[in-house]
Amino acid sequence: MSVTPVTVAAYAAPAAKAPLERTGVPRRPVGEHDVLIEIKYTGICHTDIHQTRDGWGEGIFPMVPGHEIAGVVAEAGPGVTRFAVGDRVGVGCMVDTCRECAYCLSGQEQYCVQGITGTYNALDRNGEPTYGGYSTHIVVDENYVVRIPDGLALDEAAPLLCAGITLYSPLKHWQAGPGKKVAIVGLGGLGHIGVKIAHALGAEVTVLSQSLRKQEDGLRLGADHYHATADPNTFEELAGTFDLIVSTVSAPLGLDRYLGLLKVDGALVNVGVPEEPVSLNLFSVVLGRRTLAGSMIGGIAETQEMLDFCAEHGLGSQIEVIRAEEVNEAYERVLAGDVRYRFVIDAATI
Amino acid sequence: MSVTPVTVAAYAAPAAKAPLERTGVPRRPVGEHDVLIEIKYTGICHTDIHQTRDGWGEGIFPMVPGHEIAGVVAEAGPGVTRFAVGDRVGVGCMVDTCRECAYCLSGQEQYCVQGITGTYNALDRNGEPTYGGYSTHIVVDENYVVRIPDGLALDEAAPLLCAGITLYSPLKHWQAGPGKKVAIVGLGGLGHIGVKIAHALGAEVTVLSQSLRKQEDGLRLGADHYHATADPNTFEELAGTFDLIVSTVSAPLGLDRYLGLLKVDGALVNVGVPEEPVSLNLFSVVLGRRTLAGSMIGGIAETQEMLDFCAEHGLGSQIEVIRAEEVNEAYERVLAGDVRYRFVIDAATI
Repeated sequence: MSVTPVTVAAYAAPAAKAPLERTGVPRRPVGEHDVLIEIKYTGICHTDIHQTRDGWGEGIFPMVPGHEIAGVVAEAGPGVTRFAVGDRVGVGCMVDTCRECAYCLSGQEQYCVQGITGTYNALDRNGEPTYGGYSTHIVVDENYVVRIPDGLALDEAAPLLCAGITLYSPLKHWQAGPGKKVAIVGLGGLGHIGVKIAHALGAEVTVLSQSLRKQEDGLRLGADHYHATADPNTFEELAGTFDLIVSTVSAPLGLDRYLGLLKVDGALVNVGVPEEPVSLNLFSVVLGRRTLAGSMIGGIAETQEMLDFCAEHGLGSQIEVIRAEEVNEAYERVLAGDVRYRFVIDAATI
Repeated sequence: MSVTPVTVAAYAAPAAKAPLERTGVPRRPVGEHDVLIEIKYTGICHTDIHQTRDGWGEGIFPMVPGHEIAGVVAEAGPGVTRFAVGDRVGVGCMVDTCRECAYCLSGQEQYCVQGITGTYNALDRNGEPTYGGYSTHIVVDENYVVRIPDGLALDEAAPLLCAGITLYSPLKHWQAGPGKKVAIVGLGGLGHIGVKIAHALGAEVTVLSQSLRKQEDGLRLGADHYHATADPNTFEELAGTFDLIVSTVSAPLGLDRYLGLLKVDGALVNVGVPEEPVSLNLFSVVLGRRTLAGSMIGGIAETQEMLDFCAEHGLGSQIEVIRAEEVNEAYERVLAGDVRYRFVIDAATI
């Protein structure tokens, strides 16, 4: 068991908006309840780009992004009970929470009243910066680690740790399932997993995408219908038809138009968030008692449930595996919408 | 049974923004399933002012407002089964719907896919304008009439037909009750009934009002707590504490601030609607999986349930009864917030 911090290889943005470059970052000694994970693959989430470019301000640099981590346990602290060396494991968006509030105690750690400790770009309870998964190793408390079932390939599993749970949680919470009409807005990294999960849950799934460019993909992934939102007829034709719409896009939607697609008591749930405030006519929710809501990742137990569900149904992310030195180029391609549907960094190339 | 339209006395706005004046309007012959109601009292709803002043456009003039109607059955068509001459009855915001859609068939007529036929400022299924309750009599299909229990005075019951059901329905739908912390925003015609009903349902009730001016009233009506929203400390002190907030105000709220007062999974439900679009930061719903929703009156059966509940708990509206010729002055006082808490027109003075 190591007792002093070790330096591990990583790709980091040295400053806001700077390209990522290879460097070394410290990992804490493996503590009583920690596991040291040898990272195998890390997904590139849109948030990584946003944060390294300091979109929300307050970034901590150098910043090692990555919160879609899949790997293998390389070392386990003496108090670790749930994992052993060699176990296939994953880490998502949080590596700690207060563990004491009602939400932490009820498996909704993502809504911890003290706030979550992000897997990167955060300070841990000792005041040390956290560094994410664009790295060869990471040390994480076992309570924030999940098991990746054998049925899931590690590279295809990595994006489930953020994108997968981000969609699974609201789909379950708002009861997507047989007899329910569910729309997924946007067919990207989040949306394509949403289509797969909603379909596997038994819902009738519609993709609402700007154009019909990815229609063939959408139907192959499990969508029953596919409509272009650039076509105004879409909003007339589908008015009042959905029980649930999950929006994965972070560009501002015309919320009123989407709310009009809901049945009475339907919900429009945002998991993508525009930086700017959006405009809303409150009549859009009053008429039809409609709900505008949001959802943020999911709890640890729910993340495990999601992985088990995905393994059971053979659902992985559609990925393009890249070498670490391609990360800056990959960022540009993500911003251009040129990825089907998730880049995953092969950590062996770091 | 009358066979030709009769003319009844009423107060009408002859044109948009014109003062109301005494006039006569036609009532249809009492049909097979109609009841003729001798109106005793009609509440003045803020919507009446809005519509006579053509706030939403498309007003039909002359306009007889009034959709908080309490009276006595004076005549019943031969097919009427639920009411008899002499029965104490009420009429709210709608006098017809399609009766065929899923919502009509499930007692949610207010969300009829064809839209409701408003008690006034609408066209009935024969294309004739509807005229509201600022009148001596009204003819209504019995399916859109409710019974006012003996325990409720007709004058105090009248405002329940709109204000009462507008608050009762969302409070029930979002499960206000024991163990729940409920805030009512605005202590006016809607809000004061909301406080009474939420308290009677067993919730812990907080009034959020601009100032503490009506605090004594609020506590007397059943509120457990009373806070001024003009005081920024209110939003800090109460952050994350409510299960449900019902906003009755039609001025634009700072929605993000109010959403921040909700617990995880809490709901901010709007029953007052600003004319202008409002601004919203979607992070306000994503953090804490919060819901922004709306609600519009309630179904006919639910309106009956509400009246029975109010009778059982001795809940009427706090009213100021006026003579019909005082209606224009009353409008000004409503706009100035100078009423505690609802004006009711004594129809005997029309």
